[in-house]
Amino acid sequence: MANNRGVTYQGPGKVEVTDLDYPGLVLRDGPGVHPDNVGRECPHGVVLKVLTTNICGSDQHMVRGRTTAPEGLVLGHEILGEVVETGPGVEFIKVGDVCSVPFNISCGRCRNCKEGKTGICLNVNPDRPGSAYGYVDMGGWQGGQAEYVMVPYADWNLLPFPDRDQALEKILDLTMLSDIFPTGYHGAYTAGVTTGSTVYIAGAGPVGLAAAVSAQLLGAAVVIVGDLNEERLARARSFGCETVDVSKGDPKDQIAQILGVPEVDAAVDAVGFEARGHGAGAAKEAPATVLNSLMEVTAAGGSIGIPGLYVTGDPGGIDEAAKVGALSLSLGTGWAKSISFTTGQCPVMRYNRQLMMAILHDRVQIADAVGATVISLDEAPTGYAEFDSGVAKKYVIDPHNVTGKAA
Amino acid sequence: MANNRGVTYQGPGKVEVTDLDYPGLVLRDGPGVHPDNVGRECPHGVVLKVLTTNICGSDQHMVRGRTTAPEGLVLGHEILGEVVETGPGVEFIKVGDVCSVPFNISCGRCRNCKEGKTGICLNVNPDRPGSAYGYVDMGGWQGGQAEYVMVPYADWNLLPFPDRDQALEKILDLTMLSDIFPTGYHGAYTAGVTTGSTVYIAGAGPVGLAAAVSAQLLGAAVVIVGDLNEERLARARSFGCETVDVSKGDPKDQIAQILGVPEVDAAVDAVGFEARGHGAGAAKEAPATVLNSLMEVTAAGGSIGIPGLYVTGDPGGIDEAAKVGALSLSLGTGWAKSISFTTGQCPVMRYNRQLMMAILHDRVQIADAVGATVISLDEAPTGYAEFDSGVAKKYVIDPHNVTGKAA
Amino acid sequence: MANNRGVTYQGPGKVEVTDLDYPGLVLRDGPGVHPDNVGRECPHGVVLKVLTTNICGSDQHMVRGRTTAPEGLVLGHEILGEVVETGPGVEFIKVGDVCSVPFNISCGRCRNCKEGKTGICLNVNPDRPGSAYGYVDMGGWQGGQAEYVMVPYADWNLLPFPDRDQALEKILDLTMLSDIFPTGYHGAYTAGVTTGSTVYIAGAGPVGLAAAVSAQLLGAAVVIVGDLNEERLARARSFGCETVDVSKGDPKDQIAQILGVPEVDAAVDAVGFEARGHGAGAAKEAPATVLNSLMEVTAAGGSIGIPGLYVTGDPGGIDEAAKVGALSLSLGTGWAKSISFTTGQCPVMRYNRQLMMAILHDRVQIADAVGATVISLDEAPTGYAEFDSGVAKKYVIDPHNVTGKAA
Amino acid sequence: MANNRGVTYQGPGKVEVTDLDYPGLVLRDGPGVHPDNVGRECPHGVVLKVLTTNICGSDQHMVRGRTTAPEGLVLGHEILGEVVETGPGVEFIKVGDVCSVPFNISCGRCRNCKEGKTGICLNVNPDRPGSAYGYVDMGGWQGGQAEYVMVPYADWNLLPFPDRDQALEKILDLTMLSDIFPTGYHGAYTAGVTTGSTVYIAGAGPVGLAAAVSAQLLGAAVVIVGDLNEERLARARSFGCETVDVSKGDPKDQIAQILGVPEVDAAVDAVGFEARGHGAGAAKEAPATVLNSLMEVTAAGGSIGIPGLYVTGDPGGIDEAAKVGALSLSLGTGWAKSISFTTGQCPVMRYNRQLMMAILHDRVQIADAVGATVISLDEAPTGYAEFDSGVAKKYVIDPHNVTGKAA
Repeated sequence: MANNRGVTYQGPGKVEVTDLDYPGLVLRDGPGVHPDNVGRECPHGVVLKVLTTNICGSDQHMVRGRTTAPEGLVLGHEILGEVVETGPGVEFIKVGDVCSVPFNISCGRCRNCKEGKTGICLNVNPDRPGSAYGYVDMGGWQGGQAEYVMVPYADWNLLPFPDRDQALEKILDLTMLSDIFPTGYHGAYTAGVTTGSTVYIAGAGPVGLAAAVSAQLLGAAVVIVGDLNEERLARARSFGCETVDVSKGDPKDQIAQILGVPEVDAAVDAVGFEARGHGAGAAKEAPATVLNSLMEVTAAGGSIGIPGLYVTGDPGGIDEAAKVGALSLSLGTGWAKSISFTTGQCPVMRYNRQLMMAILHDRVQIADAVGATVISLDEAPTGYAEFDSGVAKKYVIDPHNVTGKAA
Repeated sequence: MANNRGVTYQGPGKVEVTDLDYPGLVLRDGPGVHPDNVGRECPHGVVLKVLTTNICGSDQHMVRGRTTAPEGLVLGHEILGEVVETGPGVEFIKVGDVCSVPFNISCGRCRNCKEGKTGICLNVNPDRPGSAYGYVDMGGWQGGQAEYVMVPYADWNLLPFPDRDQALEKILDLTMLSDIFPTGYHGAYTAGVTTGSTVYIAGAGPVGLAAAVSAQLLGAAVVIVGDLNEERLARARSFGCETVDVSKGDPKDQIAQILGVPEVDAAVDAVGFEARGHGAGAAKEAPATVLNSLMEVTAAGGSIGIPGLYVTGDPGGIDEAAKVGALSLSLGTGWAKSISFTTGQCPVMRYNRQLMMAILHDRVQIADAVGATVISLDEAPTGYAEFDSGVAKKYVIDPHNVTGKAA
Repeated sequence: MANNRGVTYQGPGKVEVTDLDYPGLVLRDGPGVHPDNVGRECPHGVVLKVLTTNICGSDQHMVRGRTTAPEGLVLGHEILGEVVETGPGVEFIKVGDVCSVPFNISCGRCRNCKEGKTGICLNVNPDRPGSAYGYVDMGGWQGGQAEYVMVPYADWNLLPFPDRDQALEKILDLTMLSDIFPTGYHGAYTAGVTTGSTVYIAGAGPVGLAAAVSAQLLGAAVVIVGDLNEERLARARSFGCETVDVSKGDPKDQIAQILGVPEVDAAVDAVGFEARGHGAGAAKEAPATVLNSLMEVTAAGGSIGIPGLYVTGDPGGIDEAAKVGALSLSLGTGWAKSISFTTGQCPVMRYNRQLMMAILHDRVQIADAVGATVISLDEAPTGYAEFDSGVAKKYVIDPHNVTGKAA
Repeated sequence: MANNRGVTYQGPGKVEVTDLDYPGLVLRDGPGVHPDNVGRECPHGVVLKVLTTNICGSDQHMVRGRTTAPEGLVLGHEILGEVVETGPGVEFIKVGDVCSVPFNISCGRCRNCKEGKTGICLNVNPDRPGSAYGYVDMGGWQGGQAEYVMVPYADWNLLPFPDRDQALEKILDLTMLSDIFPTGYHGAYTAGVTTGSTVYIAGAGPVGLAAAVSAQLLGAAVVIVGDLNEERLARARSFGCETVDVSKGDPKDQIAQILGVPEVDAAVDAVGFEARGHGAGAAKEAPATVLNSLMEVTAAGGSIGIPGLYVTGDPGGIDEAAKVGALSLSLGTGWAKSISFTTGQCPVMRYNRQLMMAILHDRVQIADAVGATVISLDEAPTGYAEFDSGVAKKYVIDPHNVTGKAA
């Protein structure tokens, strides 16, 4: 059995690279593994040599101590890898295939999977529909910020790339297919973005930037990105977006300056429950700020896509309501405008093949847009800390230095 | 010029039948008329002899004093009538046509109308998109609970019935086409109800019952209606629904008893901001109760249709948050399940022709389902009072006694 | 190894019940098995004890000698059965489960399956996308008109019923879930049938009748069925349809008599390439008659669903064009009306769970509508002959006499 | 009353610029005017000073003598103009507005218009649903290749540009909004083109090129355009398309060379009934060639958008079948692949506002893509002749020399 190493959560603010067992085709016990999943056999699984695996904003929720994640949890749900071992039940995926792994684990056999709702698979998480690698309360599937990882239901879950060399050449773009590119696209798509739309995206972190790129790909006429962080806004401008600095006042007024009208056709919440206020008080958490603001700036008849995470409980919440996940929403504002809302995990499989095609045929440069930055596995703790500081980078861990940039 | 009489709001809890001017093809000044609309010429309009006009639950919001409706406002937005005069710009509607009037007034010329979003027409209400007859803050178009009413943009707005005798025969069903039948249908449709769905509808008032009928028409396998009011629940059972008495505990448990599982595929909020709590405390207003409960009982991947009205301000609200229309929503519960939400006025025109066909070909009995009860114009004040008491009836005012039942 | 018996094609006009090997979890060689499929291992498969299996109109294409089906081919793709053995790769389906089998075999792992297009699975038929049990040029998966049959990719393909006793009680309805009910529904659905539609269905065979039932379930206001066969038309009338006898003249005129207008909103071709003419010459084959007629009777803006089979070659075709599958279509008629067309196998999995729910909750009586008639396995040859004569029955083979009606 | 001049059809191969009456707000008698339309009052209409008006491929059908167009017919249905007079029923459009005119005339009051199906309006053409300016059998609305033209139902039909100067600056792009840009977009959209699609477009005339641009705007990964005309193919390559010269063999083989597989996800027929064959015989008309070829090259599960015109009768057709509009289609090829087909006039209003936004915000360069070439009104006959010769240009008539290029 080969060695394995991976990034683990070690308490609030603390991640480490630790030795791990080499993955087998079984879900072994460990930190955060649901008792009903312990010992679960995965003849349908494969072992991947992880080529790239990205640090995600939702990992930070755990690392900041805003969840009940146990110490020792192996992190990472954004994974691209090469198949090095296949289970006896794997028929179409082959050793040597370079593949993208959708962050949502799904079985490909339940009602929801059959309906394409892979973000809420009924068979992978004993607690509730839906799962992900390396995440708290998701059943305990080991994370992929490691040298090797096991992917269950591999024929169903994996997206193999058509050509290995081409895949390695575009790996920094393709690594975004496991989560943020489809997640951003889902946000824009469910907000109804289409040819000629005007769009406002709250949040210029990687998901927000991916939503902005996606809105352009969907044909939007104008894409406006709002954030507090000037460095991130500068990145949005670098690929043609307009920007709004929400620390400088109401987004509505700034949108009016850009468009001539204070409203957009479609809006995306790429922030979620850790939102901060607008204007002078922008530094403080204000969980409902983003959604209330989006109802203001979305024109009547528009839709709001909500890829930003909202939780049912947040022990670190700013007040009692926030701690139980209650938001004070001005729903009447949305109701008067006939606004629709789409929430939830992106079902990655619904979009990843299409977005892969767009990448492979040079229709989109997602790596540049989000500031893909390669680091080695050992640099992961630093990467977490820097990402948390708000740099406009998307950290891509390259455990085997396949890019030659992870020195 | 002929006389006219109609139902007017005269302060909290008080409606009267008063003398009115006969309508002209112009929007004359009066209580609640927006200054920009005063004197608006309507060569595209017609005068209708009102044959039937229903009392709506949303009229009650005004009559209860929960809005800023001015005294003297002529009420009524659910109208069926016969054309007695046409403006010079009316080309296809003819004198003698018996027609249903969509409650939402729309111009048929703006971007939203062209997109079928007639509930948020840009040209009829100077305050904001969307309008209705006889309603506060809707531009001031005179209400239809009267002997005669003017309908603007008549070629666009009116749905003429193919045969006058057939229309009069089925008038108690057809009168529901102006609002509650399409509104209930919109709730069910936007909740994703389709063949084989399991559905929960919160609220057994006329809109809730119409949503239940609509869910059946859309092919639902099981339709469950919840309310506090046993008489209304009995009506739901009369046409094949299951029911849940929310005063007797959590809807989730009662749904589990009916279906074997505690969740449904689709849910409709036919209550809105005047919701009351569940269980023992059910008598008190609890504005967010219904939506929080629907997020609980809707299965992952489901949708919630929200025809129930939510407001931006409610001077009579139970607390400070309610007064400014802020709801304390457990959005994380919905987010974890990837639930979608559709709010807003039903765009009646999107559905009324289809529902008319279903009525004319005896595919649906909406009048029986909602307890259509004919009253004369003079009985309107009594009708308001009885409806407010929670009787399981839908009052249909027949100002000219065309049904022979409005003695 | 247990015995097995099944219905086999033995040349034009000839079917027999013959001894067969008991199925294993492998695709063994046999008549019509594609070389690349010979010996294909199916650890993901199960063996079903066939409870009911229906004779389908498309089986008749083969039996009439209109295809290149080889002698010895085991027939049957409409299957409902009980699981008696599961392969090692089967995780969720259990021995004892009573299940419906979609007629289209699919892998649940390819792009098309992931998109819900199970009628054109890429991995089960070496010749081209899509497959079915017991059918010529479909890869060679053995037919299900037998005592036992193997179903591959069972976790994906099978629809288990929630309760065994309930399933057996409603077995004559549930047996229609494998093909004709979803196929008819697909025809109506892709024709755009919805609340209030007027619908014309060409063909009153089982698929046409299933399309008629489906149109009602979808909310159609009026459903008109056309055929040459009075017995079949009588069956359509038995559940509330209007009918048109196409031997008595142009459907357009008869539709006008029923509706007052000569056109419908939506049309379904439930006949396919073996169509016969209208009016006096109705006895002769006229392959393009149905589609040309449907373009005539469909209103501008309508759609035509085409579940009826059209082939790429028909050695028994009436003329040279028909032999190579060329139809002489008046496409300009359709183009002038902006008509859309949907062709192809129904992807059964898209609809079968929903239709099961409608059956289990008594929302639909499909068995009665199509004239479900139970026969024993040994009566299958007689059933084929009678069905071919045009009786208004749908033959359901009950190999183990579970219904008690297959004496 | 000012003078007017316009382009008229004067028999096969012959167009002239002739003196015309200045348009009034009435449909006056003239060549091709339907008797029921003679004298039709249009208080809802406006008179436009035509700023640009393009020659369309469908005009050529008439000019080539392939229709029953009467001599004297004023041609032209692609119109952009400035409002110089408004009827008394016009409320929102103002004198001075610069507007695009959808080529399909629609009333904005019938069922089809309410459903957004403006290509098949029920009230403008006494012969059948749908109409257009300056076209045979379309009711007789005068064409717009003139100095002035009347547009009925102006509040509904016209798309005003937000800024006059900006409109004049981008007029060569905006002039494509009346027909070919939306028509090409409709072809791509109804073919299901979306992010990452591979697309084949048959025909590199202006509509084909507009479909190619639209496919890119919709996010296609690869757009392949096929034609016989090298100059037109060169234009397609100029903006990033791949091309197939159909005179050099089967498109399927050439597509395979480009993509590695012989099939695309989506296909567009931008040719229609005057199609010519592929390979060596490519010079001869072969009306069914394009559609049969598209069924070959479209992958299973794909869709074919058919903006190319197919007619119900073609007196100049190559054989008896062609003369009655009968096409010999291998529908079985499409059926086996579950292909869908969408035919008919593009409902321009469904797309024109969105495409205008894309133009105004520099998201697309449609004028360059199609080779917009300005000519004066007097040069129109030459423009027709050159266009007919197959040059890769889209002629834009500028009757008042507003571009300064129509010297």
